Amino acid sequence: MLDDAINKARGKSVTVHAPGTVANMVCGFDVLGLALNDPYDIMTIQLIEEPTVVIHNVDSYGLPVEPQKNVAGVALLEMIERLHRKTGFDITIEKRIKPGSGVGSSAASSAGAVVAANHLLGNIFNNNELVQMAMFGEKLASGVKHADNITPCIMGGVTLIRSIMPLDIISVPSPPLYVTVVHPQIEVRTEDARQILKKQILLKDAIRQWGNIAGLVAGLIKSDYELIGRSLEDVLIEPVRSILIPAFAEVKAKSLEAGALGGGISGSGPSIFMLSKDEATALAVENAMKDVYAATGIAYHTYVTTVNTQGVKIVK
Amino acid sequence: MLDDAINKARGKSVTVHAPGTVANMVCGFDVLGLALNDPYDIMTIQLIEEPTVVIHNVDSYGLPVEPQKNVAGVALLEMIERLHRKTGFDITIEKRIKPGSGVGSSAASSAGAVVAANHLLGNIFNNNELVQMAMFGEKLASGVKHADNITPCIMGGVTLIRSIMPLDIISVPSPPLYVTVVHPQIEVRTEDARQILKKQILLKDAIRQWGNIAGLVAGLIKSDYELIGRSLEDVLIEPVRSILIPAFAEVKAKSLEAGALGGGISGSGPSIFMLSKDEATALAVENAMKDVYAATGIAYHTYVTTVNTQGVKIVK
Repeated sequence: MLDDAINKARGKSVTVHAPGTVANMVCGFDVLGLALNDPYDIMTIQLIEEPTVVIHNVDSYGLPVEPQKNVAGVALLEMIERLHRKTGFDITIEKRIKPGSGVGSSAASSAGAVVAANHLLGNIFNNNELVQMAMFGEKLASGVKHADNITPCIMGGVTLIRSIMPLDIISVPSPPLYVTVVHPQIEVRTEDARQILKKQILLKDAIRQWGNIAGLVAGLIKSDYELIGRSLEDVLIEPVRSILIPAFAEVKAKSLEAGALGGGISGSGPSIFMLSKDEATALAVENAMKDVYAATGIAYHTYVTTVNTQGVKIVK
Repeated sequence: MLDDAINKARGKSVTVHAPGTVANMVCGFDVLGLALNDPYDIMTIQLIEEPTVVIHNVDSYGLPVEPQKNVAGVALLEMIERLHRKTGFDITIEKRIKPGSGVGSSAASSAGAVVAANHLLGNIFNNNELVQMAMFGEKLASGVKHADNITPCIMGGVTLIRSIMPLDIISVPSPPLYVTVVHPQIEVRTEDARQILKKQILLKDAIRQWGNIAGLVAGLIKSDYELIGRSLEDVLIEPVRSILIPAFAEVKAKSLEAGALGGGISGSGPSIFMLSKDEATALAVENAMKDVYAATGIAYHTYVTTVNTQGVKIVK
C-alpha cells in the first residue's frame, strides 16, 4: 500500500498554505493554541529518489538549507525514517511568517511540510503522527518538543494538548473571534523566554491559573465572550516574560480600553495578540497598538485576522 | 421591600434537602465540584424576632448548637448581618451526611441554611451572595473560605470557581454521570489534608494539571466520556493526600478494572468517588470497592448515585 502511494505520488507536487498560530493563549501555557488566517507560509513539495530532503528557500530570511539544521527538514527526515523506503522530498519554502516573531513561524514550516508530504502520499499518517513528526522541528527551533503551535497549525481552530506523552490532542470549538497582533521588530529567542521562567511555582498561583484555563475552555465551547475575556488572565508566565517586550503593559491596557476581550503574549513573544468579538473592535485595537508603538520609536507590524478553522490548506 | 419580605415570611417555614458534593473532581483542586443526589441533609427554617440563630440538631452527631461554632449558624449570622433588621432564624437540622466524610457535609449545612433562609425571604439574595455567606461556614470548618463544595450544593451539576476574589462561578454542563462513593469510616480532617500539601510545586506538574482540567471541562461540555476518563488524573494533590486513605490505590485500580471512567479522592477524603457512564458499571464499581474494603477490615459505607442537577431542593 505504501509502495503504491509512493508510485502514485511520483512526478506530482503539492502546494500548501501553513498558517501562523498563537500558542499559550494567555492562561494555557504549553497546552493551548489557536490558528490564524494571516500570516501564512507557502510551500511546494515533491518526491525525490534519494532518502533525503532538498530545501529551496524563496525568501530573504537566509534560513539553512541543510535538512538537519532546518525545521521543515528535520520533520521531513523523521517522516523518511518512518517510511522505510528509498524516497525523499524536495521542498520549496516561501516564508512569510517572520522567524522569531512569536506567531509560530517554525511550527508553520515543520507542520506545513509534513502535511504537504502526507497529502502527496495519500494521507497515510494521522494527525497524531503528523504532530509527532513536526515536533522534531520544534525541538530544533527551541530545544523542547512542544506541540502548542504545531497542533492548531495542522488542525485549525483552538486546540488543547491535554498530554504530550502520550500525545492527546483535543479540538476546542470556539465562536467567531477576531485577532489583532502587533509584532515589535525585536528578537526574543524562544529558548531565552523559556529559560527565565521559574521551575517552581506557588500552588496558589497554579490554582488561579487552572481556574482560568477551565474558564477559557468553558467560555470558548459555550460561546460566552464575557467569560473568555475574564479568563484571559495569566498570573504565572506573563509577569515574567512581559519584561522582555517593550511597552507590553501599555499595549494591553490600551487594547482593553479599545474593547478587546483580552489577550497577552503570543507564544514566547515578542508579538502581542488580542481577541475581539467583531472586526470594528479588532481594528480599533490595532489603532491603539499602533499609537503605543509609534510613540516608542520601535519598528512594528500589525495584523488583523480571524481564527483559521481549517489548518494547513492544500492549495494545489 | 425587605421589610415586606420579612413580614410575609413570619410564621412560615421552609424545608430543604441539601445535597452532598464532590469537590476537586481529581484535577480541579479548589475550583471544580459536583453535586450528588444522595446523601443529603434535611433542614427546616423559620424566622424569629431576635437577630440570632437558634439551632436544633435532630441527629446523633453532637454538633454544636452555639451559632458561632456551627457552620450553618455562622452562615446565617452573616445573613442576619446583611439584613440589618431585628430578625433571626430558628433552624432544625437533620444531618444525614456524616461530618468529615469528604462529601461536603459542612457545605450542605451552610449552603442549605442560606438557601432555605433566602427562599423564606422571597429570594432576595443571588447565588453569588449565597455562596459568599455560606463560605463563612467553610471558613469555620476548615480554616479556609473555599467554595468548591458550596457552589455545586447551591446550583447543582458541575461548577467551576474560576476565581474566588472576585467570585466568578461558572456552571459546566455535563452528560449523565453515575457516581459511586466509598466512605471508609476513618477521620481525615480537612485542615490536616490541606496542611500536608506543598506550597510550592513544579511548573511542569502544574502544566500537566491544567492540561487535564482543560480536558475535563471540554469532555464534560462535549459529552465525551472517554476524554472525561483520560482527564481524571491528578499529579499534584492525589499522590500526597492518598497516603491518608487506606487502600486508595487498590480501590482506584479495581474500580477502573470494573469499568469506571475514573475518579479519585472526594474533596480532602477519606471518601473516594468514581464516575461511570451507566448504572450497571457504577454498581460493578461499588462491588469492587466493597471487596477491597471488606478485606481490610475497615468499616465503610458505599453510595451509588447520580449527578444532582438541581442543587438545594425546596421540599416544603
